[in-house]
Amino acid sequence: MPVLQVEMLKGRTVEQKREMVNKVTAVVAETLKCPKEVVTIIIREMEAENIAQAGVLKVDSK
Amino acid sequence: MPVLQVEMLKGRTVEQKREMVNKVTAVVAETLKCPKEVVTIIIREMEAENIAQAGVLKVDSK
Amino acid sequence: MPVLQVEMLKGRTVEQKREMVNKVTAVVAETLKCPKEVVTIIIREMEAENIAQAGVLKVDSK
Amino acid sequence: MPVLQVEMLKGRTVEQKREMVNKVTAVVAETLKCPKEVVTIIIREMEAENIAQAGVLKVDSK
Amino acid sequence: MPVLQVEMLKGRTVEQKREMVNKVTAVVAETLKCPKEVVTIIIREMEAENIAQAGVLKVDSK
Amino acid sequence: MPVLQVEMLKGRTVEQKREMVNKVTAVVAETLKCPKEVVTIIIREMEAENIAQAGVLKVDSK
Repeated sequence: MPVLQVEMLKGRTVEQKREMVNKVTAVVAETLKCPKEVVTIIIREMEAENIAQAGVLKVDSK
Repeated sequence: MPVLQVEMLKGRTVEQKREMVNKVTAVVAETLKCPKEVVTIIIREMEAENIAQAGVLKVDSK
Repeated sequence: MPVLQVEMLKGRTVEQKREMVNKVTAVVAETLKCPKEVVTIIIREMEAENIAQAGVLKVDSK
Repeated sequence: MPVLQVEMLKGRTVEQKREMVNKVTAVVAETLKCPKEVVTIIIREMEAENIAQAGVLKVDSK
Repeated sequence: MPVLQVEMLKGRTVEQKREMVNKVTAVVAETLKCPKEVVTIIIREMEAENIAQAGVLKVDSK
Repeated sequence: MPVLQVEMLKGRTVEQKREMVNKVTAVVAETLKCPKEVVTIIIREMEAENIAQAGVLKVDSK
């Protein structure tokens, strides 16, 4: 029944997301001892102006 | 003071959202014994490539 | 596939939660046109010192 | 290590976001006694049809 | 209508939380140009075994 | 800069969490092409009375 929310910068391809959810689900099921079927992953993509570290927007720190 | 976050696939109309928040707020207020005025609902819509079940993106499982 | 997160103050009984998830799932399924089976609800309970409105902790505004 | 998620209506400028994350990070670091470097802020912008108060979508209550 | 969720390690006093929500609300209202009354802040406290950076639990990295 | 939130039932050991964050971070870094250092994982544990599927609390469906 684990639900994962993944917040990341925009720019990944569908192929990268496909591989990510496939591998994350596998290791979550393995380490938490649950069937893969009950793992849900939600991806949220952010613009670089919507994430900040240390008080600085990513769009300004690149 | 309940705050609800609803994660769902894109594609619903404004009319559907209007009806959903109206009815969800009513049953939340009724069952949790609080005034409707203090219920906040945030809707987040996802592309089918941003949600996965059992390690498979929704866009691949349709 | 809707996933709902409900943030609320501590103090509700299991019976209230049972009724809340039952009724919220029903109206979500009805208004968003999806089977009840795909609706997930996560409840998170807060202490009154962990929620603030207008800059004032709930524990101070009661 | 604080992680903040800020949900707000669309329409703010990058300059407003820049100032917001700068000042929020400063007061979080000051009040929680942690270095600014460990503070992460994620901004999520909503359409007015995706937020409701008291069972009414913001788009209908303006 | 901004809703903030603050995830942080356990161990802060109520006085620190009180000061944090007071000051964060003030700078959010000032920079986003909204009344303080519409700002909601939810605090979630974590054990050090429930947060990881770089693949290492905080409880192991202290 | 990915931030992951993992919602799961209570009952896992610290060793399971340690292994989970280690392996999830590795596959996230690999598939999203980012250094492990920028991956943050937040774990939130739920009681079985705080998660529902298909309108039924987990505590009732075991």
